[in-house]
Amino acid sequence: MRTTQEILTEALGAKRLLADLTTEKKNAGLLAMADALTEQQDEILAANRQDVEAARGVISPVMIDRLQLSEKRIADMADGIRAVAALPDPVGEVRAVIERPNGLHIEQVASPMGVIAIIYESRPNVTSDAAALCLKAGSACVLRSGKEAHRSAEAIVEAMRDGLQRAGLSKSLICLIEDTSRASADALMHADGYVDLLIPRGGAGLIRAITEHATVPCIQTGTGICHVYVDAAADLQMALRIVDNAKTSRPSVCNAEEVLLVHRDVADAFLPALREALVTRRKAQGREPVELRLDERAAAIIPGTPAGARDFDTEFLDYILAVRVVDSLSAAIRHIAEHSTHHSDAIVTGDSEAAARFVREVDSAAVYVNASTRFTDGGEFGLGCEMGISTQKLHARGPMGLRELCTCKYVITGSGQIR
Amino acid sequence: MRTTQEILTEALGAKRLLADLTTEKKNAGLLAMADALTEQQDEILAANRQDVEAARGVISPVMIDRLQLSEKRIADMADGIRAVAALPDPVGEVRAVIERPNGLHIEQVASPMGVIAIIYESRPNVTSDAAALCLKAGSACVLRSGKEAHRSAEAIVEAMRDGLQRAGLSKSLICLIEDTSRASADALMHADGYVDLLIPRGGAGLIRAITEHATVPCIQTGTGICHVYVDAAADLQMALRIVDNAKTSRPSVCNAEEVLLVHRDVADAFLPALREALVTRRKAQGREPVELRLDERAAAIIPGTPAGARDFDTEFLDYILAVRVVDSLSAAIRHIAEHSTHHSDAIVTGDSEAAARFVREVDSAAVYVNASTRFTDGGEFGLGCEMGISTQKLHARGPMGLRELCTCKYVITGSGQIR
Repeated sequence: MRTTQEILTEALGAKRLLADLTTEKKNAGLLAMADALTEQQDEILAANRQDVEAARGVISPVMIDRLQLSEKRIADMADGIRAVAALPDPVGEVRAVIERPNGLHIEQVASPMGVIAIIYESRPNVTSDAAALCLKAGSACVLRSGKEAHRSAEAIVEAMRDGLQRAGLSKSLICLIEDTSRASADALMHADGYVDLLIPRGGAGLIRAITEHATVPCIQTGTGICHVYVDAAADLQMALRIVDNAKTSRPSVCNAEEVLLVHRDVADAFLPALREALVTRRKAQGREPVELRLDERAAAIIPGTPAGARDFDTEFLDYILAVRVVDSLSAAIRHIAEHSTHHSDAIVTGDSEAAARFVREVDSAAVYVNASTRFTDGGEFGLGCEMGISTQKLHARGPMGLRELCTCKYVITGSGQIR
Repeated sequence: MRTTQEILTEALGAKRLLADLTTEKKNAGLLAMADALTEQQDEILAANRQDVEAARGVISPVMIDRLQLSEKRIADMADGIRAVAALPDPVGEVRAVIERPNGLHIEQVASPMGVIAIIYESRPNVTSDAAALCLKAGSACVLRSGKEAHRSAEAIVEAMRDGLQRAGLSKSLICLIEDTSRASADALMHADGYVDLLIPRGGAGLIRAITEHATVPCIQTGTGICHVYVDAAADLQMALRIVDNAKTSRPSVCNAEEVLLVHRDVADAFLPALREALVTRRKAQGREPVELRLDERAAAIIPGTPAGARDFDTEFLDYILAVRVVDSLSAAIRHIAEHSTHHSDAIVTGDSEAAARFVREVDSAAVYVNASTRFTDGGEFGLGCEMGISTQKLHARGPMGLRELCTCKYVITGSGQIR
C-alpha cells in the first residue's frame, strides 16, 4: 500500500502541470475519462460486487443501494463527466477590471485552486463527479473514499487515470488515497503545503472533526434544518403544494423541509388540509404517511405527536415534520434565526412586503419566496453541476459549482510604475 | 472588567439589528463616529499618553512611534472613517441573476457577514479603520487590541459608540474586548456561534496559532516574501527603478521586495548598476544602504554578503535584498514556486510571451508585469480601503475591501414551483 504522504507528494507534483491545462486539454481528458469508465465497466462492476458483498450486514440496505453499481449507473457516471466537459471553463474568467489613474491595468482572474482533497462516503459516483469537477476547475484532486466503497473507487480511478493518459495528460491529476483508516483523513486535514482546499462530504461527525482539527483550508457542506413559513397572506393551496413537496419528494436530503411554521390567522384553515394531504391521503394511497410533531397550539387544531424538546432542532431526514403555530412574521423570523442551520428557508405569502422582510432578515444560504426548498441544488440553480452545498459564509455559500472550486489572482500590468 | 463572553453576547445581540441598517443609517453612524473622535480627542490623547508611558522601554522606538497619537493622527483617523462613509454600500449588490426555465428567479445578493472579530496589535488607527469597514459592510464588530494600545483603543471605541448612539444606532455594533491576555484571543478563536469571521492582523506567531487552533472561520493576512524577476528582455533602466522602489520605498511592509532574481544574460549589465544605486549612491546621500545577500553567481559579478541558507526564505522587512542569478524564465518561476509566500511577485520584461507565461504560472495573490510590488494595497487597487491582504486562496485573495467583508445569499422567488 502506498502511504498517504506518497500520494500527496504525487498530487503536489501535478501542480506544476496545471498552468498548461488549456480548455481543450481538460475537455479531451474528461471525454477520455468518460469513455474509459464504460470500457472498463466489467472491472468496475467486479470490484463493486466485492464491496457490496463485504458490506452486507455491516451497513443498512439503503446504504447498500447507494453503494451498488450497474451498467446503467456507470453509464450515468460517464454522462456526468461528459456534462462537465460541456460546461464553460471557469479558469481565466476575468472577474473584475480596474484601470488606475497611474496607468496600471488590474484584472482579477479566476485561477486553479491547486490540489483539492475530498473526503466522502460510500456513493461511488462521487468519485467520478468530484474528479471531473476538479479537473475542469484546473486542479489536481486527492480523493479519499469511504471504506465500504474503496474497491469500487479504485477501479473507477484506475479507469479515469487510463483515460487521462490516453488524452496525453498526467495520471497524477487524479489520486486516490489507499489507506481508508481514520489516519488518512487526519493526514489530509493537516496536509499544509500539499492541499489547497479540503471538502468534506459526509455526516455531522466528519464535519465537526474537520472544523475542530483541520489546519488546511476547508469548505463545509453542512446539514439542513429547513423551514417553510406559511404566512397570514399565503395562498393556502400553493402553501400545501410547497410543504408537501419540500417534505415528501425526497426526505433523506439536506434541502428537505424539517419544520413548518404557520401563522395563527391561517392555522385553523391550513393545518386540517395539511393533515389530510400528508397523513390521511398518503395512507389511503399506500404511501408512507408523514408523522406530524405538533407544538401545543397546532395540537389544539389537529391530532398528531406532541413535539418534544429537540424536535425543532433535528434534521429528521425522514417522513417526520415538526409543526409550530406562530403569532407573526417576526416570530417566524425569530424562530428561524434560533433554530435554522441556515441552509434553505422559505416563506409562502402573497404579501410582497412580508416577502421582502423575510428575504432581508433570514440569514440563510438560500431564502425562498413561494417555492419549495428542494431547489437548493447546483443543477436546479443552473450551475450545471455541484460539489456540495456550503452552509458556511466564507468563499462559497449555497450550491458550489465550478466557480467556487477556483481561486483568483490579481494580474497587474504596468509600464514601469513605482509607488 | 466585563468578560469576553459577556462582550460576545452583546455583539450577538446586535446581529438582529443588521437587517435594518440601511445605507443612510450606516453613513450617518460613520459620520457621527468621525465627529465624535475629534470632539473627544482630549480624552483619546490622555489615554494614549498613558499607553505610551507604560510602553517606554518595553517596546521598540519604532513601535512606540506607531502607538503614539497626535491631533493630526486623530484627524486622519476621522477622515478615514469619512472616506469609508463615501464608499458605495457593498450590501445588497446583486452578484448574479439566474432565470430558470421553470420560472424561478434566482439572485445572488451580497449580505452582511454578521459579527466580525479582529485581533490586532498596537496601531490605534486600526481600531477606527476596522470598526468603520465592518459597519459599512453591515456587520457588528468585536475588536481585540494589543495590550500596549488598549487604553487608546478604549477611548477611541467609547467615542465611536457615542457617535453611533447620537446617530440613533446601537452602541453594540462596536464592541471592544476588555481582557488583553492570551485567554481572550483563544476565546475569539473558539467563539463558534458568536463570530462569523475572525481576521487576525499581526505577526507570524498569531497567524500560526489561529491556523492551528481556530474553529471559527478565519481569513489570514500573511507574510510577504515578494520577488522581482529581471528577465533577459527587460528594460534595465525600468528594472532598476522598480527594484529600487520595491525594496527601499518602505522596507517594513509586506509588499516590499525581499528577493531579486536576475536572468544570466543581463546579470553582468544589471548587477553593477543595482549596486551603484542601492549601495554606493545611497551611502553618498547619507541614506541607509541596502545589504545585498548574493548567491555565488551574483557574487562573482559584484561584491556583497554571501547569501546564507535561509536568505531566500526570509521576510527581512529591512534594507536587505537577497539576489540570485537564474538561467531562464523557467528557473525563475520554479524558484518563486518554491520560495514565495505567494503574496506579490513581479516580472520586468519587454517580451510579452515571457510576461504571459509568468502571469499564468506564478500562483500568487498579485502577479505584476513591469510594476513595483508595492502597489498591492486596497487603496492602490482602487478599492478605497483595506482590511488587510489575504494570502490564502479561499474567499479573499490579495487586498480585502468591503466586498470581501460581506457574504452572499441566494434569494429565490417563485410562484409556487415544486420539484
